[in-house]
Amino acid sequence: MSDTTPTPDARIDVSVVGDALLGTWKHERLESRRLASDPRLHTIHGQSMAEHRERALGQLGILVEEGAIQRAFPKRLGGGDNHGGNIAAFQELVLADPSLQIKSGVQWGLFGAAILHLGTQQHHERWLPDVMSLKLPGAFAMTEIGHGSDVASIGTTATYDPEAQEFEIHTPFAGAWKEFLGNAALHGQAAVVFAQLITQGVNHGVHAFFVPIRTPDGEMLPGVGSEDDGVKGGLNGIDNGRLHFTRVRIPRENLLNRYGDVAADGAYSSQIESPGRRFFTMIGTLVQGRVSLDGSAVRAMQAALAIAITYGTQRRQFPGASGRETVLLDYGQHQRRLIPRLAQTYAMAFADERLLTVFDEVFSGARDTDENREDLETLAAALKPLSTWAALDTLQEAREACGGAGFMAKNRFVGLRADLDIYATFEGDNNVLLQLVGKRLLTDYAAQFKAGDRAAIAKAAASQLGDRVSRFGLRQLGQSIADLGQMARSVESLRSPEAQRALLADRVETMVSEIALAMRDATKNVPKGNKRAKAIASEEAFNAQQHKLIEAARAHAELLQWEAFTEAIDRLQDGGSRQVLTWLRDLFGFGLIESNAAWYLVQGRISGQRAEAVTAYIDRLIGRLRPHALDLVEAFGLTPELLRAEIATGIEAERQAEAQAYVEEQRAAGTWPVHEKELRARAKAAARA
Amino acid sequence: MSDTTPTPDARIDVSVVGDALLGTWKHERLESRRLASDPRLHTIHGQSMAEHRERALGQLGILVEEGAIQRAFPKRLGGGDNHGGNIAAFQELVLADPSLQIKSGVQWGLFGAAILHLGTQQHHERWLPDVMSLKLPGAFAMTEIGHGSDVASIGTTATYDPEAQEFEIHTPFAGAWKEFLGNAALHGQAAVVFAQLITQGVNHGVHAFFVPIRTPDGEMLPGVGSEDDGVKGGLNGIDNGRLHFTRVRIPRENLLNRYGDVAADGAYSSQIESPGRRFFTMIGTLVQGRVSLDGSAVRAMQAALAIAITYGTQRRQFPGASGRETVLLDYGQHQRRLIPRLAQTYAMAFADERLLTVFDEVFSGARDTDENREDLETLAAALKPLSTWAALDTLQEAREACGGAGFMAKNRFVGLRADLDIYATFEGDNNVLLQLVGKRLLTDYAAQFKAGDRAAIAKAAASQLGDRVSRFGLRQLGQSIADLGQMARSVESLRSPEAQRALLADRVETMVSEIALAMRDATKNVPKGNKRAKAIASEEAFNAQQHKLIEAARAHAELLQWEAFTEAIDRLQDGGSRQVLTWLRDLFGFGLIESNAAWYLVQGRISGQRAEAVTAYIDRLIGRLRPHALDLVEAFGLTPELLRAEIATGIEAERQAEAQAYVEEQRAAGTWPVHEKELRARAKAAARA
Repeated sequence: MSDTTPTPDARIDVSVVGDALLGTWKHERLESRRLASDPRLHTIHGQSMAEHRERALGQLGILVEEGAIQRAFPKRLGGGDNHGGNIAAFQELVLADPSLQIKSGVQWGLFGAAILHLGTQQHHERWLPDVMSLKLPGAFAMTEIGHGSDVASIGTTATYDPEAQEFEIHTPFAGAWKEFLGNAALHGQAAVVFAQLITQGVNHGVHAFFVPIRTPDGEMLPGVGSEDDGVKGGLNGIDNGRLHFTRVRIPRENLLNRYGDVAADGAYSSQIESPGRRFFTMIGTLVQGRVSLDGSAVRAMQAALAIAITYGTQRRQFPGASGRETVLLDYGQHQRRLIPRLAQTYAMAFADERLLTVFDEVFSGARDTDENREDLETLAAALKPLSTWAALDTLQEAREACGGAGFMAKNRFVGLRADLDIYATFEGDNNVLLQLVGKRLLTDYAAQFKAGDRAAIAKAAASQLGDRVSRFGLRQLGQSIADLGQMARSVESLRSPEAQRALLADRVETMVSEIALAMRDATKNVPKGNKRAKAIASEEAFNAQQHKLIEAARAHAELLQWEAFTEAIDRLQDGGSRQVLTWLRDLFGFGLIESNAAWYLVQGRISGQRAEAVTAYIDRLIGRLRPHALDLVEAFGLTPELLRAEIATGIEAERQAEAQAYVEEQRAAGTWPVHEKELRARAKAAARA
Repeated sequence: MSDTTPTPDARIDVSVVGDALLGTWKHERLESRRLASDPRLHTIHGQSMAEHRERALGQLGILVEEGAIQRAFPKRLGGGDNHGGNIAAFQELVLADPSLQIKSGVQWGLFGAAILHLGTQQHHERWLPDVMSLKLPGAFAMTEIGHGSDVASIGTTATYDPEAQEFEIHTPFAGAWKEFLGNAALHGQAAVVFAQLITQGVNHGVHAFFVPIRTPDGEMLPGVGSEDDGVKGGLNGIDNGRLHFTRVRIPRENLLNRYGDVAADGAYSSQIESPGRRFFTMIGTLVQGRVSLDGSAVRAMQAALAIAITYGTQRRQFPGASGRETVLLDYGQHQRRLIPRLAQTYAMAFADERLLTVFDEVFSGARDTDENREDLETLAAALKPLSTWAALDTLQEAREACGGAGFMAKNRFVGLRADLDIYATFEGDNNVLLQLVGKRLLTDYAAQFKAGDRAAIAKAAASQLGDRVSRFGLRQLGQSIADLGQMARSVESLRSPEAQRALLADRVETMVSEIALAMRDATKNVPKGNKRAKAIASEEAFNAQQHKLIEAARAHAELLQWEAFTEAIDRLQDGGSRQVLTWLRDLFGFGLIESNAAWYLVQGRISGQRAEAVTAYIDRLIGRLRPHALDLVEAFGLTPELLRAEIATGIEAERQAEAQAYVEEQRAAGTWPVHEKELRARAKAAARA
């Protein structure tokens, strides 16, 4: 089926699209959704923090009983060595209770995974069985009050004492206290503590240590202190807290020594020579948290749209010319609020599937190269910020689209939004992650030229300024043709996937080259040899470009989402599904162009008339997709047990029907009172006659 | 002081700017802030819903004791006839506990005010003293499950029985149940119930009735049912619930009969002949809720920025070239996140002061004309949506800017955000309100021409399409001059307030005229006389323009905010304050132009180079305002007792100082371990030598 000959009566095949969304780990997802449908795992609205914490701990026990947590652990320990399936299943738990989900993430995805990935076989055998069975609940003690995003600068020290063959774990000032740790306030009996490893008077940088913190009956061990973080904006089923250590002694063997070790005599060794690369290798295992959140955010968006769109097709408000009150989703503004977000959700769902595939290739060892790890980290750093922000935005818009009903806990939006709020800054602050992506884009850009040949970069960037319209064959798109009033023809050339991709890719590349040029210009006049002056000038130049660099990273992520959406459509066999999803993809692509229209106009990539045509075409696409809105949310496959929102049960349609039946009955019986307005109109008509 | 000769060392006079922000009702605001500083009125994080509800009721008692609720009531009943002061004082309570604030708003601003404004002297004397003393807690029963924004279509009926001289209040189907009412689940003993008034077989439209619902000891009265709404996304100190009525009888005198009355024999009378105008007059008293929320939203934004900016000037992260870690607010992105929102907050604060002034003029009777009432309603409908949305956006950005610390209840953002969420849809759904403003803009636009002369409208609109660049003297702004690289000069012409105003006003006027033209075009081919076809075509045309109309209303509101900001600066005497606030106003104005740059480009109002210059100038303004950020939040006058955020107390600066002192001490003692990176660098240097 061609994109240019729309079939107006095309429908999606809900099960075909549903399977595409479930993706490679369909089996694990469905298994996890069955579990997430279990009332024992559901949030109880209005529970006190203390009750919710106990319930979440109990729910972790249920996950163990149900065999739901072992997938990522080694087969020799009863696991499944199934990394993609593990994250896929984890993502589905968000609709049971995000507290349960994240607490399980702390236990098995952070605490357990740190032992698995940073420790060696002795550690695995010694601790993982108890971690997996929940006999040993633990915390992941990386973040400090004084250092969140900048892990390399944490203040906690682990100083080796060769006499005792022990490490001394110490938080020398309040800023070094470990903070915001799940399982720290109440349930954790041990923690993987990140600390500066000091031996023989040398700081070898951040390493991870296994540190017992509490007895099974809840007593703190000597030298370990804990404080409760108390009430949070959400996730109150998790006992977040602070930990501090006063010269706490642990055996030398408690260093998780996969990437760096200390011999009995205190000699340090590592197979990774560069301390910087060693640090990023260790920290790199954190990527699975980002992958997990990306898909969880998408699932929450899907739930929000399923609820709001279902309600929007039943709820009526204000009399329409047709005689009945108008259904909310038939209002132009209501469509503008929800349908583009539906397109975005599809794009993000397919992008997450792609991310998960790359993740599985690396973590399964199938394609575990340095380059793939780096690509995985960049991909996760690009997608997680956009999806976690989009989830908050979509949950909020959906809640508002349902008015007061949206504010009731029983309709799910507010609880999910409160719980997912922290997604934007944990497992990597969104802005910091995007900056990471931006830096990678700059590095890749510079790598096109001879190493260090800044003159070549500048030349290339400068030539683009003059030449940029002709790159990517975009000249025809940008020309200001006199096609006013011929909107249809003027978007024609933008409708091909190639044109959309070219516009989106060009924006990333142009922004990156401009940033590179600006940074070069800002430092070129610093006298050679003045290292400090150069460092300061370079920092200032970077800072001046920081906002733009983050925007470039965002544009890059959007391009990746668009590509994932397009590839998913290419894989579909069903014609109707392809057709409707192509409209949806176009809406996503055109939406990106519309929101960045000023950039495209300033750069001469599109004419003013073309920009107006883009908006007009978006309106047309939204209208065309309106009849498919229910199908498109049905394909998410979220059952009533997963949604659990009263307003998505059909209750509103029942109320509307009851009200209408009452009015009709009264009318038929002649007991329906005439309205004063009608009387006045009749009197006026009579006076005229 | 001229705007074009900036004095780089200008500082604001914090008390001068503070007074400007406190405005006309400074005394009432300060009195209310003193009250809001009282720990008895503060939120206790993590309280259960039941406890919080009881506490909020108790807090209302404290307000009565402290003489804080009587301002708007008549002097003859012990009130102050002080409408502006009442709302000003109310707005300040948001920082004590939004539940307490809104529950007091239900009791005195809705329930009490309905008796005051819709009732007559007998009602005032009979019920207001008990309402004011809280002896009679009540609900405001307007919204129904089936009808929120469309009050005219509610299903509850009040049918007059001349035999008994009683009204029968009845909710004939589930959709007519009164919903989301504060004081309905537990504490209300009466309700002002809005119902269709039916007498002598005629429905005279919606009127308000005083209906007892519960005994003082909590028993529901016969025929009245109540259900608890349970847990909400916020405001859980308020006992929201549903009320339903099964043929409940009330005396004829319980009709609040200021605008419409029923004689003993059932004859209906009203001094307002048109049922439509009568309805809008009664509903118009609701405007005070919108005015209240507007300023409360601003206060929450001020608190959010005071906390985040204070923290942002203390918190450091990532080593800088200077040798120390960099303060967050010195990062370009952090400035981009917070400083434009500071400008917006100032604009909204001054706009709210203007709104409150108009409100007071109307409600005090000083300038109570139909036209002023209509202007007041339009102004409130324009400002409330933007400020309530901005509050959510600012609270969220501020929370994220503080990372995990922002997610802790003790730092205030999350609680305020959860509580203020509903501001976006109660007291008028934001989109519905903006549509109201848009309709008013269309009406005013049409009124420029002969009544009903659509041809003239079309002609005017069409001529603008060709001529629009020359209106408002904008041609010079739009021309594509070859000033690349001369950013300073190219924004020069935009920096005058006149140019900013012209650009902002032109956008509103052009959008409105285009919408008017599009609607006219869409209906012009409907055959004359086919009323139904015309109604349907007209509805479809309106629906197609709905999104754009709402955007036009938003642009109108932004212009009003910009104007209020500009007028406030004009009133300032202090040169430094004028200078800094002018930069801030320019940042607000340029920010609006930047966010709508695509529109200005498409319409030929600014050239591409000018658009880039706008962004460059925004960057400059942000950098220029950075040193004033703390002064600008200090001028909000929010004391530690009002902010109550741990991270705004200086605790972070103390931690930083402690950490630095520790490192310096270790260095001085020679016990600071050398880092492996440094050793490797030294070895490398030695090898080279």
